[in-house]
Parts: sequence; structure tokens; C-alpha cells
Amino acid sequence: MLRLSSLSGQRIPQSETFQAHYGGGEANVAVSLANYGHEVYFASKVPENDLGEAVDKHLRRYGVSSEFVLTGGKRLGTYYLETGVAGRGASVIYDRAASSFAEMTELEWDLAKLFKNATIFHISGITPALSEAWQQLTIALIKKAKAAGCKISFDVNYRGKLWGQQAAAAFLKQVLPLVDYCSAGKMDALYLLGIPEVNGKSENEALVYYYQEMQRQYPNIQVFYSTLREVRSASANCLQGTLWQNQQYHESQIHEIEPIVDRVGGGDAFAGGVLHGLATGLSSQETIDFATAAAVLKHTVHGDCNQFSQQEVLAFLAAGSGRIVR
Amino acid sequence: MLRLSSLSGQRIPQSETFQAHYGGGEANVAVSLANYGHEVYFASKVPENDLGEAVDKHLRRYGVSSEFVLTGGKRLGTYYLETGVAGRGASVIYDRAASSFAEMTELEWDLAKLFKNATIFHISGITPALSEAWQQLTIALIKKAKAAGCKISFDVNYRGKLWGQQAAAAFLKQVLPLVDYCSAGKMDALYLLGIPEVNGKSENEALVYYYQEMQRQYPNIQVFYSTLREVRSASANCLQGTLWQNQQYHESQIHEIEPIVDRVGGGDAFAGGVLHGLATGLSSQETIDFATAAAVLKHTVHGDCNQFSQQEVLAFLAAGSGRIVR
Amino acid sequence: MLRLSSLSGQRIPQSETFQAHYGGGEANVAVSLANYGHEVYFASKVPENDLGEAVDKHLRRYGVSSEFVLTGGKRLGTYYLETGVAGRGASVIYDRAASSFAEMTELEWDLAKLFKNATIFHISGITPALSEAWQQLTIALIKKAKAAGCKISFDVNYRGKLWGQQAAAAFLKQVLPLVDYCSAGKMDALYLLGIPEVNGKSENEALVYYYQEMQRQYPNIQVFYSTLREVRSASANCLQGTLWQNQQYHESQIHEIEPIVDRVGGGDAFAGGVLHGLATGLSSQETIDFATAAAVLKHTVHGDCNQFSQQEVLAFLAAGSGRIVR
Amino acid sequence: MLRLSSLSGQRIPQSETFQAHYGGGEANVAVSLANYGHEVYFASKVPENDLGEAVDKHLRRYGVSSEFVLTGGKRLGTYYLETGVAGRGASVIYDRAASSFAEMTELEWDLAKLFKNATIFHISGITPALSEAWQQLTIALIKKAKAAGCKISFDVNYRGKLWGQQAAAAFLKQVLPLVDYCSAGKMDALYLLGIPEVNGKSENEALVYYYQEMQRQYPNIQVFYSTLREVRSASANCLQGTLWQNQQYHESQIHEIEPIVDRVGGGDAFAGGVLHGLATGLSSQETIDFATAAAVLKHTVHGDCNQFSQQEVLAFLAAGSGRIVR
Amino acid sequence: MLRLSSLSGQRIPQSETFQAHYGGGEANVAVSLANYGHEVYFASKVPENDLGEAVDKHLRRYGVSSEFVLTGGKRLGTYYLETGVAGRGASVIYDRAASSFAEMTELEWDLAKLFKNATIFHISGITPALSEAWQQLTIALIKKAKAAGCKISFDVNYRGKLWGQQAAAAFLKQVLPLVDYCSAGKMDALYLLGIPEVNGKSENEALVYYYQEMQRQYPNIQVFYSTLREVRSASANCLQGTLWQNQQYHESQIHEIEPIVDRVGGGDAFAGGVLHGLATGLSSQETIDFATAAAVLKHTVHGDCNQFSQQEVLAFLAAGSGRIVR
Amino acid sequence: MLRLSSLSGQRIPQSETFQAHYGGGEANVAVSLANYGHEVYFASKVPENDLGEAVDKHLRRYGVSSEFVLTGGKRLGTYYLETGVAGRGASVIYDRAASSFAEMTELEWDLAKLFKNATIFHISGITPALSEAWQQLTIALIKKAKAAGCKISFDVNYRGKLWGQQAAAAFLKQVLPLVDYCSAGKMDALYLLGIPEVNGKSENEALVYYYQEMQRQYPNIQVFYSTLREVRSASANCLQGTLWQNQQYHESQIHEIEPIVDRVGGGDAFAGGVLHGLATGLSSQETIDFATAAAVLKHTVHGDCNQFSQQEVLAFLAAGSGRIVR
Repeated sequence: MLRLSSLSGQRIPQSETFQAHYGGGEANVAVSLANYGHEVYFASKVPENDLGEAVDKHLRRYGVSSEFVLTGGKRLGTYYLETGVAGRGASVIYDRAASSFAEMTELEWDLAKLFKNATIFHISGITPALSEAWQQLTIALIKKAKAAGCKISFDVNYRGKLWGQQAAAAFLKQVLPLVDYCSAGKMDALYLLGIPEVNGKSENEALVYYYQEMQRQYPNIQVFYSTLREVRSASANCLQGTLWQNQQYHESQIHEIEPIVDRVGGGDAFAGGVLHGLATGLSSQETIDFATAAAVLKHTVHGDCNQFSQQEVLAFLAAGSGRIVR
Repeated sequence: MLRLSSLSGQRIPQSETFQAHYGGGEANVAVSLANYGHEVYFASKVPENDLGEAVDKHLRRYGVSSEFVLTGGKRLGTYYLETGVAGRGASVIYDRAASSFAEMTELEWDLAKLFKNATIFHISGITPALSEAWQQLTIALIKKAKAAGCKISFDVNYRGKLWGQQAAAAFLKQVLPLVDYCSAGKMDALYLLGIPEVNGKSENEALVYYYQEMQRQYPNIQVFYSTLREVRSASANCLQGTLWQNQQYHESQIHEIEPIVDRVGGGDAFAGGVLHGLATGLSSQETIDFATAAAVLKHTVHGDCNQFSQQEVLAFLAAGSGRIVR
Repeated sequence: MLRLSSLSGQRIPQSETFQAHYGGGEANVAVSLANYGHEVYFASKVPENDLGEAVDKHLRRYGVSSEFVLTGGKRLGTYYLETGVAGRGASVIYDRAASSFAEMTELEWDLAKLFKNATIFHISGITPALSEAWQQLTIALIKKAKAAGCKISFDVNYRGKLWGQQAAAAFLKQVLPLVDYCSAGKMDALYLLGIPEVNGKSENEALVYYYQEMQRQYPNIQVFYSTLREVRSASANCLQGTLWQNQQYHESQIHEIEPIVDRVGGGDAFAGGVLHGLATGLSSQETIDFATAAAVLKHTVHGDCNQFSQQEVLAFLAAGSGRIVR
Repeated sequence: MLRLSSLSGQRIPQSETFQAHYGGGEANVAVSLANYGHEVYFASKVPENDLGEAVDKHLRRYGVSSEFVLTGGKRLGTYYLETGVAGRGASVIYDRAASSFAEMTELEWDLAKLFKNATIFHISGITPALSEAWQQLTIALIKKAKAAGCKISFDVNYRGKLWGQQAAAAFLKQVLPLVDYCSAGKMDALYLLGIPEVNGKSENEALVYYYQEMQRQYPNIQVFYSTLREVRSASANCLQGTLWQNQQYHESQIHEIEPIVDRVGGGDAFAGGVLHGLATGLSSQETIDFATAAAVLKHTVHGDCNQFSQQEVLAFLAAGSGRIVR
Repeated sequence: MLRLSSLSGQRIPQSETFQAHYGGGEANVAVSLANYGHEVYFASKVPENDLGEAVDKHLRRYGVSSEFVLTGGKRLGTYYLETGVAGRGASVIYDRAASSFAEMTELEWDLAKLFKNATIFHISGITPALSEAWQQLTIALIKKAKAAGCKISFDVNYRGKLWGQQAAAAFLKQVLPLVDYCSAGKMDALYLLGIPEVNGKSENEALVYYYQEMQRQYPNIQVFYSTLREVRSASANCLQGTLWQNQQYHESQIHEIEPIVDRVGGGDAFAGGVLHGLATGLSSQETIDFATAAAVLKHTVHGDCNQFSQQEVLAFLAAGSGRIVR
Repeated sequence: MLRLSSLSGQRIPQSETFQAHYGGGEANVAVSLANYGHEVYFASKVPENDLGEAVDKHLRRYGVSSEFVLTGGKRLGTYYLETGVAGRGASVIYDRAASSFAEMTELEWDLAKLFKNATIFHISGITPALSEAWQQLTIALIKKAKAAGCKISFDVNYRGKLWGQQAAAAFLKQVLPLVDYCSAGKMDALYLLGIPEVNGKSENEALVYYYQEMQRQYPNIQVFYSTLREVRSASANCLQGTLWQNQQYHESQIHEIEPIVDRVGGGDAFAGGVLHGLATGLSSQETIDFATAAAVLKHTVHGDCNQFSQQEVLAFLAAGSGRIVR
């Protein structure tokens, strides 16, 4: 996808310039993992024009293979971001109608080749939200991946502007029994999985409960993870990562982030960090610490994708906040 | 007026680039009201050159009629703004000498046409500060407007760089008996209206007292309003709106604004919000809440004028601070 | 429409920034006419979001009424422009699939109100190229306009990326009998109107012949006009305007334009100049001189629309090329 | 003076950004001479604010002493430049009303100190055009300088936007008898000095005649100089320098300049080059070659002032046009 | 290497901003070939910091493998480019002292791996100019490559700022007997290979003679190629490609390039085009036409490297100059 | 030195643009003192190219004499700064290998002239860190300065990326007996002067102890000073200045700085303020208040050097934080 952002402090109707960034949930996770040294392939479909070419160049720049990026269709999915500041939240105009990817109706990749030697297949809930066809294709892809021996990583990533809660919930019922690693939190538990709200507990204690309940529903899922985010303003957030694994709850320290340069992609950087931990055998605590640090760093750079190596994320964890290195 | 601003983090003598914004107290109020769907006319005088043309285009862009913007005279009133950051406050270089508007010596508009069907006439205390002629013209304009059935809205807006307290106080004695809606606060009460300072009260309680005293002096005034602003730094303020109407004091919640993108025009957005409430029959509380929210939002965008619709101001009030909408 | 342009000297896949300009054939003609002091209304449909709002602001800024700009539908028609330089021509990526305007299937305006007191209705051949529905709607609109007493102005404006020659030719057969003022040139005559090519003549003499033949086919058309453009490079063109009226051929001087700042909208500025001449009773020679000068000036500014007043176009004609005025 | 320029390809009413450059005729000559290693002092008056400070910093950066730049008065003289492109000439909005310098009514410098050890005093005809007071002050300054042993350098520099031909001619009658080095050309001869036009000669031959006639009127003047400029467009000029000294006419080669980056200050770079030649005892031919080369180079950089050292000007003369040095 | 360029129209001492581009002769050739679909590996050494990382990202973005880019050493080779305009030529400040690559003293790559399956090894004369060690390493690398079955491509690329003619000539004597494809022209023939100048011939005829003589000296070389460039100014050049193969001379059409956006890398794009023709079996004429077109297109984009696919180069050849495609 | 900074929110490998600022520890102190009206000379060595010229222009702009800036050598010392934001600290890539200054091996200035009439000689610990030669040259310079009657000001300014603690400590043993004014704090005391750490005290009390101990070691030193900086994040710091003079400890108020625009040069602005106080006979308390205020203001502007006059620093101290002046 192409993101076109207004400059900070400008509304979209005032804007004479837009910043262009390429990304999207799965692509951002792919870049994170490539940054950490994993071999990563991204599968999508883009139009056969210079915008499609730009997607390829973006992926390759960060070391992600574009071998499975198909070309064809009418247009590249796009969205406009009006960057938020202080009390004014960011706002997004989705402009994905008729995109090459959204209009796919069959799996055009050579699936045997796609999943050959792959160990993790990651996909987000935005994909099935694009069309009914994509709900079926998502399930089909996951089944093929599973058959090929992949772990299935799924990020619920519910977007109310794309589909209703009911449709999303119905889809989750189909997909979650197939999933190994699942990014889902309190809101997903309440509104998509039908888990009753718990009261009288701290936010973190409640989250443990929701993880337990989700685990009960889907014993097949090995890991749940999500962030607790306190939105003080569009420019200042507190972020804490949480992870549920082996019936144990783990949480990172709370990071204050102020000012936020660009929040988009923070969740994807978090997911990328969790998958890195799982793929390399970090402990649960190391995993959640690493993933949260990666997410925090992402907030300090423009663009959708994480720009930090494994070494830099670890250095950030070690050094604490904001010291100049010279 | 033309504002030429340095980029953030640059002093004026370093600046190789200035950002140009058109505005000015009354023009900013006009834009706010047009944003909220009112029919608004702006009356002024600009030189017959491309800068004058730019003023017209600015007004029309926001739906304000430029029918009463006269052309002629020597130059467009200008000021330079060095944007403040952190502990360094903004600083302003006024460059209004010999401006087309400041050098007017008679009312060159067709006044019958100007005020036809108008319901509110708004003017600020900057206008009479420009020249002695403008002190007389201001009174004359207000009397004509009143005769034509307009409510008179006056924003004291005292600027020490333009005239002395004594001159301003003398002028206020003439103008306030004619005014219906008045933006004035503690400083105006103390230094321009001669109301003795009250001690031992909270800031808000003291303000109630000043409103009462001002009301006592000018029983003709239906509404007083002003903001309480805590300046933590040039980049972080707290803002609370207050309104005195029907012998009652109303105040909004306190909004934290950090970081401030551009503070100039915040007071005008506030005045615009108050006039919108008065013009559409909002309750006092709704009015002050709306006006304060509008003022807060203004701080998050570059340029002098409010960029938000009625619906967006209300959404901001409803949603709280800084959430991303997607 | 929204145009997103790369910076000069950058290809689209390299671009981290796009310049945003709002425009489109008919909108550009509207702005030209408003610049010359005419009362102009623009009718279209845009999505109900900030991009739609930006279209309104653009029109109002230049004094064009946005009263008939409807809101609704999925997205704003967009295109990407890679600016050409030297031997590298500009290239365009159309991104209009599923646009609010393109997907209209009925005339949603209050047509009685739309055409009330209108004297000219201008539309281009890009509109019927958007969909089959729009071919019918175009004819319907033109008939309504004609019935309301408008002169019908039609710019053939054939775009091979939008429809084939055969479809365009078939549509022209329907529309041209209804047209009063028609922008069409040699290519249109040859490939869309089926007029046989003439050889052994100068380019200008041949054009006289094509005008004669087109006039013969459509005696109802009062004026034909088009430009002869010699493309030396993407940065240097020669431009000459031509007009056929009352069985007479008129041509402007040849203008060299180097460097070209932005060629897009040059044809619309030309059409706007011709309509201005027709609407104000200029002679044919004055009309073609004025229109060509306006088109030339357009090439020297960024953005789709003409930025020059009648007085400035005339001053350019009088002064000759490139003198500094001080 | 402060120049505020629109970006290339943008008209002033579209401009959201202006480029700031400090300069002015005499200041630009001063910078040129400092670039060539001369000790140079600039005398003027600027307001006591950050814009005045910026003028000082500008001069010092280029090695010109700001010791005689007085502070006081209301504002800094300003002008807006809409950069010309192709056939569209640049246009200027003077905004000098009430400037600190223009409103001077007496010579506020310590004149003994000002002229101590000075060898050349340079002033242009723009200064006396600012006010009647400045006509008298100009004469007074020149007489003082002459008494102190300076050569008097005067650049006629007639600006029709500042005063009429009659007033300028009357002033020239007073000043030229005091002048040693005079920048004046055909237009000055015809319209300000009343020399009858000559026909039937080439432009260069005619210029010889005008120099002869001016010399006849003012035998005290040792050197006349001016440029012949062919304005092909705002982006392409041909420039040739000419010099009259010891009853001999000298001319440089003709330089083509395309594209022109910034023409403002070209004449001042030329004058600076001539004065450099005169001050260092170059031959007439060397002087005119050097001065013209300096003027040509000035056209290739943004800003009012020459950015080239003596060595760079000479290297340009030696190397010919446009080779990359690596 | 990192190139830091001033903005057009600005001298380096004025520059507050530099544009960063990564490139260098061999890297630019590598990018060209990757654009045309070849599998390309680039071998170099960069420091282990973010500038080194940027080099990797640059290469990968364009599909060049960075597998053989070693890390270590003190700094990245850098140069500053003051972009030329009109008569003012570009000027370069080399800042390569102590660079990681220049200070290499042995071949640190796994040479067996480096040359495995490689078909062409390309290197330029800038590399041996960096140090005496690099003269020996260059020869050693070439011998290894030859032994591994590569064709040896060598671009003489003499830079007077890096070494003297004598040293270069001595080195050429060693290297040319090993070369298969050689970029060398008249200047190289005269000053480095000692071929006597021929007079009384056209430039093209003379070049045939120089190719013949060079061929006579080095019968092992299969192809010679170079461009004839007429430098009208820094902004306007004419370019013609020439090729000598099988004792036959071939030349492309002459391309006018105006304005030039960025000339740096034009020669590398030319070399890349020639190697593409040789690698894919194009005829000599096709090869020289393709290579020249690629070089011309390069001049129209910022940055060192060719941004065009094979299809785009062919489309440019077919379409002629500067037409808009829409 | 030349600093090349990434834009805020961008990492170096993403950066297509770098901001150029000239500075360096001693140069920044020089500019501060010139801002306050002192006569200041800066001694260094720069290459004879446009980057060297830019250094001269930078110094002169701020009123620092460049008379003792020698030219010669290979390159200008450079460093790259990735601006920190929120939790991500700034990071620096030093690129000083082979710089003209670092490679000096003898004192090339006319030392008699250099120190004539000078009252203070200031140098920082970065200079001896550049090479062993510079350790000896530093001592030699200081001895010459002392002999000429200068007070010796030395800023320890330890940079771990340039030399080890042992080497630095050994050097300090040589230099400190010669010093009059010394910028050194807790870290220097602990790791370079071998003073044992004190526990159980507040940070300020501990600092008093370290000053006492340093004073005991070097009774010749008249003044010690340093800042206490609490790094909340790269964007928010608290800063307090401290001064030890006449066996007395003085401290300024604590300033919060948020957001930080550019932290580099803050310490130099502090040193400049202290030297100003010492040179003009301010009291210890006035000195530390002034110096700290200057350091705080520096954080609010881009670039290495202080941009504030004495009057502006005092106004900041008087007015408190962040009020707009109009």
C-alpha cells in the first residue's frame, strides 16, 4: 500500500505536499524480520506501473524478497493520513476501492514454491476484511501454509472502517482454530470473541483474564500478544507489551513516548519483534521486552516500517532513554 | 495582514525562508464563522497588487466573501513571527507602518450595503490602535452597524506594542457602551478598566469578580468571555475558556496542549466559537465548551485561521484527546 | 481530480514527496473564466471527506462557485504525473477507478437550478470516456443545457488511455450536432471524424482544410479551435493557437515556451481564453491571440489552472517576452 | 533591503513560502568588491530589530564592514519578487514606504570617519529616488566624499516605479558634474540626458555615439559603462558589457545565459567588476571582460549578490562555458 | 561513495542543505544492468556504520546484490558536487582521503565465490587511481576474473584530480592486454596511449582513426566505446555514442539534452547500456543506440544511477523526444 | 567542522537530505562571545576549497575574525548526526580521519600576532584527542598564550569515541596545572582525575565535593564549572548550571527544556556564557545564571552555535518561560 501523509501541523485540505511511504501491516512485519536477519518473502499483488515498481523497490531496499509480488489489476491500495498533533488525533482516509490486491479472487501464486522451506506464515485481519473473496482466500492460504509445515501467525487487527464486528467475529471463528501465534487483546476478546467483560481489576490483571479466556476457546494457539497503550495525546503515549505463552503472562516495562514522530506501523513492529523472539528461541520475557522496544523505536521515525537492527533494539533496551552517543 | 514566520527552531536572522500566512484578528474570526456555515463578509482595505489579491483568495478559499475588501493605498500590513519553542517565547516584529488599512481616514465602504441583513458586527481593539483616525472610524462604524440592527462584538485585544494603556482605556470608555459581546479578561479589567485587583482568591474566582465589576460598569454588555492560559512553555499551554452571561459564570474543562504547533489565532478561534454559540442559540455551557475546543484545535495547525468544521469541533469534544480514527 | 506530481528530475518510484494539485479539464476552464471576471459554477461529485473538501476550497479560492459540487461515492479521481524533462516526456498513471464522479449513473443535480441564467455550458470528451453511463449522461446534460438557452462548448480532448477511437467516434456522432463551440484539431478530424488526410500542404494550410471539412459535417458548430504544438522536448515547445469562425481561419503568433514549468492544463487555459473571447464579443483575431497568450502563461506556473487575470494576459501580449517590471 | 521571492513557477498569490535574500544595489556592489579582496564599508540605516540584525550578518558574512550601518527608524525596506520563467517576466512589488533608510532626513554618520582613507564612494540613483530629502543628502554625501579625496562612482539605475523621468533628469544635472565613474547607457542618454536618438546604426555603434555625447556633456566623467542585454525570455538572455574610457569604446564578448537562475543583482555584479578593474589598474579591455563575466556568473546563483572570487571569475573567462571540473 | 550535492543555483559555501546520493562508477553500472534484468553483484568495502548501511540499502533497492560489500575501515569515500548551471560548470570537491575502500591493501573477498558463474567483470580506472596498492589489486582482481572465465570490462575514466597522466599511462600498459571491453576515447588515445593527434578530419572520422590505432595496440580488445559530447553549457549538451567492434565503427544519432538535470553517472549509464548489448547479443548498432539512449535518459533524473528499465529505454528510442503519454 | 544532520524523525540510511551546520567546540564558544560584544579570533586550519571558505563565512557572519584560520591539508573534519527523538538518542558518526586540522604537526600561526592583546585563550579537550601531535601542540599553545598574558580556559569535553580514559587522564595531568578556568564535572573527576566516588549525598552536594577535590589537586584553577543534566528523553532534558569559584559553589535554577530542537553546542554556549561573566566581572551567581540561560536557549535553535545577544539572554532570564512578545 501507498500511504500519503500530510506534513505535521497541516490538515489534508491545506496540504500542497504529501509524503509517500510504502507499507501495510504484513509488509511492515516482513521488513522488521528482514532487519533482524531473517530470510523473508512478501506475497501480494500490485499494478503493473511505477507505483507497483516502487513497492518492489521498497521491499528490496530492506532486504525483503519481492519474488512473490504479482503484477496486474487496476490500482495500488492507498490511504491518506492526516498526522495528529497534541489533542487532535490522526485521521485516515482509506482509498482502497478497486485495488489490485483487494480485487483478487483466486490464489495466483505458485503455492508449493511460496511455502517451500517457510517456517512462519504471517497474515493480518485486514486482508479478509477487504472482500468476501479474501475471507475464503485467507483460509485457503493458511491451510496450505499449515500443510507445508508453517507456523501460522495471525494479527486480528480489526478496522471498523473496513468491516463490521459480526462479520469479523464470524471469520475469526473459522480462522483461529488454525492459528499458532495470535495478536489479540482486550477489545478483540470483548467484541469479536464474545468474552464477557471483567470488572474491578487493574488493566493488566484484566488482560490476563482475557488471555486465559481466549486460550480456553482456542487451546491450539501457542502465543497471544498485544500492547496496552495509554493515549495521553496524539503526541504522547505510554506503551507496554504483553505476552501470553505456556499459560504464563509476561509484560514489558512501560515506555513513555513523547513526542511521537509517526505511530503508524507501531503494532507491526511489535508483531515483528514477537515473531523474531519466537523464531530465535528467546524466552517469553526477552521476547516481550524486545518486541516492545522495537515498537517504541518505530514511533520515533517517519514511515510505516521499523528501521532498526536487532543490535540497535538491544542497545536501546540496555541504554535507557535518549542519551547521545558520541 | 500577511504573516511571515520563521521555521520552528530558526531565529529570524538565520532564516532563508519565511512561511506566508494571511490573517488578522477579524479575518480569523470571519473564517471560523464561515467554517461553521455562517454567511460572512470581511471588510478591509488592501493594496492593488498581488499581495492584496492573495488576501482575497485566502478569504474566498474559506468561504468568506471579499466583496467589501477595498483596494488602494501603499502596502499590506505585515508582521514577522519568530516561532517560539520550549522556553523561548515567540517574538513578533510588527511591520504595519503605512499600510493601506492603517492609513484609511474615512469609511470608504457603502455602509448601507455593508450592514444590510447583517446580524453581528465584529471588530477588535487592534483596529483603533492603528491610528487616531481609526479610533474615530471604529466608533463611527459601530454606530452605523448598531443603527442597522447588528449586535456589536468587540474583542479588546490590547497590544502594548501598538498603543499605551491610557489611550486604550480612553477609547474603551467610548466604545464599550456600544458593545453587546465583549472579549475581555483580568488584564483588561485591571489595566484598562481600572478595576481594583482582588487578592486571596483562586484565579477562576477572581475572574468571576472581574466579570461582575465589568458588567457593573457596562450593563449593556450581554456577554463577556476570555481564556485562562497557563503558559508552561512556548510549546505547552493549558487553556480554559470562560464566559459570563446573564450574571452567570461558565467555564470549560482545562485542555492541555502539547506540543503547540502555532498559537497565533487561538484567541480568534475562541471568539469565533463564542459568536457561533451566540448566533445559533447554544446554551452558555455549550458555547464555552465549543469555543474552547475550537481554540485548542487551532493550536494544532499552522496558520492563523481555524481549519475545523462545526462537526469536527464537536467530534473533538466527544472523543477526547488524540485517538487515531481508522 | 487530484493530481499527485513527482518533483522535476525525479521518477515516481524514487519519489518520497508528491505535489498535490486539484483540477481537471472542466474545472480548469472554470477557473480561467472566473479569473477573467465571469460568474462560474462547477458541477461535479466528490467523496464526503477531506479530499472532497479540498476540491471545494480550490474552486472557491479562484472564485468558482462550488454550489453544484455534490458529495458522495467512494473516492476522488486521482492521477500521478511524472514530470517530463528534456527528452524524457511526462508520464501519467491514471488512478480513476471507482471514483465518485466516474461511478455516477444519473444526473443528481437540480437541473433547472443548474442551468438557470447560464449562458455557456462547457464539457470535455474526458467525461463520456469514463463510463458508458457517462456517455448517456453527457448527452442528457447537453440537451438540458441547450433547452435552457446555453451555448454548448465541447472539447474533444481524446485520451487513448481511457477509451478507443471507435467508441469515441461513435459518441462524437451523437454529441457534435448539439455543439456550438468545439475544440478539435487535425488528429480529431483524421481519427475520430474520418476526414481523409491531406498531403502536400503546410501544417497551417492543412488545418484550414480540416476545419472546413469538420464545418461541412457539422454546420451547426459556430467555432472550431485548436493549437499547433511543436514538441522540441518536454522542456521546450512552440505553441500557436488557431480558430475557425464564420468560415474564416485565424491564427496567433507562434510562442516559444522554454523552459516549460508545467504543461498540464495548457489546453484548458486555451479553451478558457476562447470562451472568454466569445462571451465578451472579442473579434476572432483578438480571441485567438488572447487564448493563446493565456495558454502560454499557464505553462510557466505549477498546477493545473491558469493563474492570470485578463489584464495580465493582455499585458503579456503587449509587452513581449520576459522583461522584468520594476 | 530584504527581498522576498516566490519559488520559480509560482505566482505570489499562490506562494506559501518566500525565499529571503538581503541586498540592494550598493550593498551588492560592496559584496562584489569584498569578494575580490578589497576593504569595503557599507553605510545605511536599518531598524533596530532582527531584520536589521540580519542585514548586518549578511554583510559581515561576505566580509563587508557593517560599522556604518546605523540602527533606528520604523522598518526595513522590502520588495517582493515574482520570479519570471520563459515568456513570463519577473514582477516586483516595492514595499519601501516608511523604511528606516528612506525616511532619513540628515546625514547621521560621522562623515570624517566614514570617508577616512576611502578611495571610491559608490552610490546609485535609487537612493535619491526615495525622497526629496535623499536628493539633497546624496549631493551632500558626494561632495563630502569628493572633498575627502574619493573617486565618485554613480550608477544611474533609473526605476520608473520610484520617480518620473523629469525629476530624475533634474537630479542628474546636479550630480553628474561631480561624478568620476558613471554607469549609464542608451536609455539614460535618451530619456534622462536629452540626447537625440540616432538611427541607422547598429546597437553597438549607436552606443558609441551615446557615450560620446554623454562625455561631451560631462567631460569630468572618466568612465562610462553599461550592458547590452538581449532578453530572449525571462530564462534566456544574451549579455555584453561595454565601457567608454579615454575616448575609447571597449566591449566584451557576448555571453549567452540559459537558464537564468536569478537576474537580480546582475547589474550590481557588473558595476562591482568595473570598479574592481578601475581600482586595481586593469586595462579597459580586461576591466570590461572581467565585469561582464562577473555579471554572467551572478545570473547562475540565487540571491542578490555575487558569490565569486576574483580567481573564479578569471577561471570562468579562461575556461569557457559549463565544463565540469573533476 | 556518497555524493553530497548543493541545490541547483546555490554555491557550496551558501548551502544549508546537501542532497545525498550513493553511487560511484562501478556501482552505477551495476544498477543499470540490474535494471535490465541481469543478476549483478557489487564488490566494495564500506565502514561499519549507518553510511555503510545506506550503501547496502541503495544497492538492494535497485536489485544489486550487496553480498560482497565488505565492512570495515575508517570512512566512506565522499565527494561534494556544486551543480553547474548555464555557463557555470559543476565543480567537485573530492573527499576520499582515508576511505575504507581506498585504504584496502589486499583482496579481502572470497575470490572463488566472487567470480563463480560470473560472465563479465567490470572495473573503472578510478579504482587504481586511489592508491598504488589498488593498482596492484586491480591487476590481481582482473587476472582472477579472467581465470574464472569472465570477460573483462574496463572503463579508462581518467580523473586528473586523482593521478597524473604518466602514472595512468603506465598502468594502462599493464591492464589493457587483459581487457575485452574498453571504454576509451580520443583524449585517452592522445594523452594516455600516446597515439599522435590527427588533423583535418571531422570529429567522428578522427575518432575512427583513434579506435583503429588503439585496436592496433591492443588487438585483444573486442570492443571500444565512448561518447562525443558537445558542451554548449552546463545545462545543455549534445551527446552521441560511438562503438568500435569487429573493425567496424558505429554511432548513434546525436541527442540534444536541455536542460540537464544531473550529468553525473551519464557515462556509467552508457557503459551499462553497452554491456547490456554485449551480454544479450544485440547488434553493434542496436547496442550503441540503446546505450546512448540510456545515457541521455540518465541526464534527466537526479542521482548517480540510471532509473530506467530496458523497456523504457527502448520506448524512448522509439517515441522520440518529450511527448506526454496519457 | 562540518556537521551533516539528518532531519528529525529520519535515520541516516533513510536520509536523502542532510542539513549542513559549521561549528565545533571552540568555534561555538567564539560565536557566543562575539554575540555578547567581545572581540574574538578563531584559530584553526581548513582545506583550501569551498568547504573551508564556508567555515570562514560562518565565522564572519557572527562577527568572529577568521584572520587565523589557515588553509591547507586534505579535508574538513566532518561528522554526521542522527537527531534523536523521544527515547531514541542522537547518534554521531565521526568522520574526521585525515582532516586538515587533525593532521597538523606544528604550530603554523604567527604566535606573537595570535596572542597579541588577547585576554583569554580557550581550547577544549577534543583538540588533544585528535592525535599525539596535537597533545604536544596543545600544551605548546597554552604555554605561549600564558606567556603572552592570557587566562587559559580549558573545557575537558571527554569523548570516548576519540581516545581512552587513560590517555586523557595522562594529558590532563600535563595541562591542568596551566589552566585558569576549567569546565569539568563529576564524570571527569571520577574517571579522569581519579577522585574517589562519594555516596549518600544529593547530586548537587556530591558535585560540591568533586569541585573541592579537583580544586585541591589544582589550586591554580580559579573557576570550575559544569552542568547537571537530567535526560528524560532525547526530546526533554532538565539543565542546571553549576560554578565553583573562590571556594564557593553556585548553581542556577533548574530549567526544563522540552522539546529540544538541537542539543549540540549546548555545552559550548554554557562555556561561552561563563567566559562572558568572567570577562565582564559579573558575580559568580550572575555568571552561572547567565551561562545556563544561554545554554538553555541554544537548545531551542538548530545549528551548533548560540544565536542570542547578551540582551536576549538577560530578557529570557527576566521573563520566564515561553511568553509571546507582541
